[in-house]
Amino acid sequence: MSFGEFDVIDRYFRPLSGPGGLNLEDDSALLRPEPNKMLAVSTDTMVENVHFFPDDPVETIGRKLLRCNLSDMAAMGARPFAYTLNLALPERLRSSSEEWFALFSQGLAEDQARFDLQLIGGDTTSTSGPLVLTATIYGSVGIKHALRRNAAKPGDCVWVTGTIGDAALGLKVLQGAMADPSGILVQRYRLPEPRLVPGLSRTVHAAMDVSDGLVQDCRHLARASGVSITLEAELVPLSDAARSVGASPEMCFTGGDDYELLLAVPSQKTEALREIFARCDIPVTLIGRVEAGAGVHVLDKTGGLITFMREGWQHF
Amino acid sequence: MSFGEFDVIDRYFRPLSGPGGLNLEDDSALLRPEPNKMLAVSTDTMVENVHFFPDDPVETIGRKLLRCNLSDMAAMGARPFAYTLNLALPERLRSSSEEWFALFSQGLAEDQARFDLQLIGGDTTSTSGPLVLTATIYGSVGIKHALRRNAAKPGDCVWVTGTIGDAALGLKVLQGAMADPSGILVQRYRLPEPRLVPGLSRTVHAAMDVSDGLVQDCRHLARASGVSITLEAELVPLSDAARSVGASPEMCFTGGDDYELLLAVPSQKTEALREIFARCDIPVTLIGRVEAGAGVHVLDKTGGLITFMREGWQHF
Repeated sequence: MSFGEFDVIDRYFRPLSGPGGLNLEDDSALLRPEPNKMLAVSTDTMVENVHFFPDDPVETIGRKLLRCNLSDMAAMGARPFAYTLNLALPERLRSSSEEWFALFSQGLAEDQARFDLQLIGGDTTSTSGPLVLTATIYGSVGIKHALRRNAAKPGDCVWVTGTIGDAALGLKVLQGAMADPSGILVQRYRLPEPRLVPGLSRTVHAAMDVSDGLVQDCRHLARASGVSITLEAELVPLSDAARSVGASPEMCFTGGDDYELLLAVPSQKTEALREIFARCDIPVTLIGRVEAGAGVHVLDKTGGLITFMREGWQHF
Repeated sequence: MSFGEFDVIDRYFRPLSGPGGLNLEDDSALLRPEPNKMLAVSTDTMVENVHFFPDDPVETIGRKLLRCNLSDMAAMGARPFAYTLNLALPERLRSSSEEWFALFSQGLAEDQARFDLQLIGGDTTSTSGPLVLTATIYGSVGIKHALRRNAAKPGDCVWVTGTIGDAALGLKVLQGAMADPSGILVQRYRLPEPRLVPGLSRTVHAAMDVSDGLVQDCRHLARASGVSITLEAELVPLSDAARSVGASPEMCFTGGDDYELLLAVPSQKTEALREIFARCDIPVTLIGRVEAGAGVHVLDKTGGLITFMREGWQHF
């Protein structure tokens, strides 16, 4: 049965498109930005066998892609509203792929509804290699309300949402290196939960999302702000699932794929921060402090410095 | 020598970034859209061995990617100002790639200067397959000045810029199927010329760029506008280089990769159209007419209908 590029667009992607996408018929999307807002733009590429696996449930693949991008919007304090999607498709998905596209687009539809997003454009093409997906996401943020990485101040407290390390452990599970009786670790690898929390800019000095690994990402934040960050390892929140597999701090703190928010918050805003996250039912934990200086220091419970072989993920 | 993701960003991409990119340090770019303008967004993915070749001059690869996107901006009547760039890199470019990145980014820099663009963000990752590049481009267009595909009217004349078929012939040359003594055909394949012409909305009813093949793209325009398009084959402009290799109309009219503008223009605007393009030194040629009905009809010089085995390019 003939099934080509235009069929895929007609059957699976056009139904996902919103008004800015002009029915996916034109040479570009047209967005009407909100007056007096900034447009936040973030983009992520995910590659089969690097960021997801061929035997992952198909409906989770697009959702993971969206959610990694949504996490960037969360980290900027932006309200996401639209995305574009690019697919480079391997032969197996071009020749007998209707079921794949049905499941893939169903996953996207689910998260579009959940996060109030519209598809506005994209590109589909072929590759002789593995599946490569790119999503670019568009959000709106008040001109003085964007959360940056470069405004952490000595004296700020360092906070993190959720728990750290689960997704990296989930990857180990999928690689056969450990068991995951509850399924929580794999779930966290496949479906991160973007921490979209409105109104953080009045409470938070600096923010980013933890994607490459907590230690490495703290280093990025510290460098951008011209400060040092000291973490207390004992304070970093681990899930019961992570504790039950006896995960090492190194594995959790450097594994990446967490998509939790890392926040530098002035100490007098502690209660305001707790209230904001309690309203959203998102755990938030104090894990360290910002100081003058440079670099990242991770301390054990005796105050001794923990060093790591690697601090996080580099893609090559 | 160690050379990783962050080195590539530091050395080759950060120097290309503009203010909206926040020094490529944050989780998203932040754009301040012009008041009372629409934001035009277009995205293209190019895959090695599909859209370019491993032995193409490296500096042309990123430029082709940008220019295909710029052509979409031209087709929408938008003024491009920024782009994001995603790379999925094969092993050979991750292990000994400094020269490749130097040339690649040099090409981008050249076209950034030429087209007044800034890099605002992106993502670099690895793949076990061929190089996959995605660029997403951002442009500005007055609220009532976007050129759409859906507004061609019966009675309009159909015009096209430049010459048609050269790039498709250039691909044949690179595949070893024909000679190209002047090098013009290969040049047109590797470096399309986006037809960015300001002020078309007062003169043109509908526009798109010819990327998949003239006949197929006319069909897209006709369908979007609910009209039929009749082309006179003899009028379609071919270059001397195309004529010299004895290219068939089929090859030229269906090959794609032209990145010329296809325009539906009311007949009373003929002189205005000629003047606009003459000022930009871009040839523009009358090739047919818009009529009531549906579909695309290509006529030979006796008025007989020419049919084609395929009308253009589908990516799978």
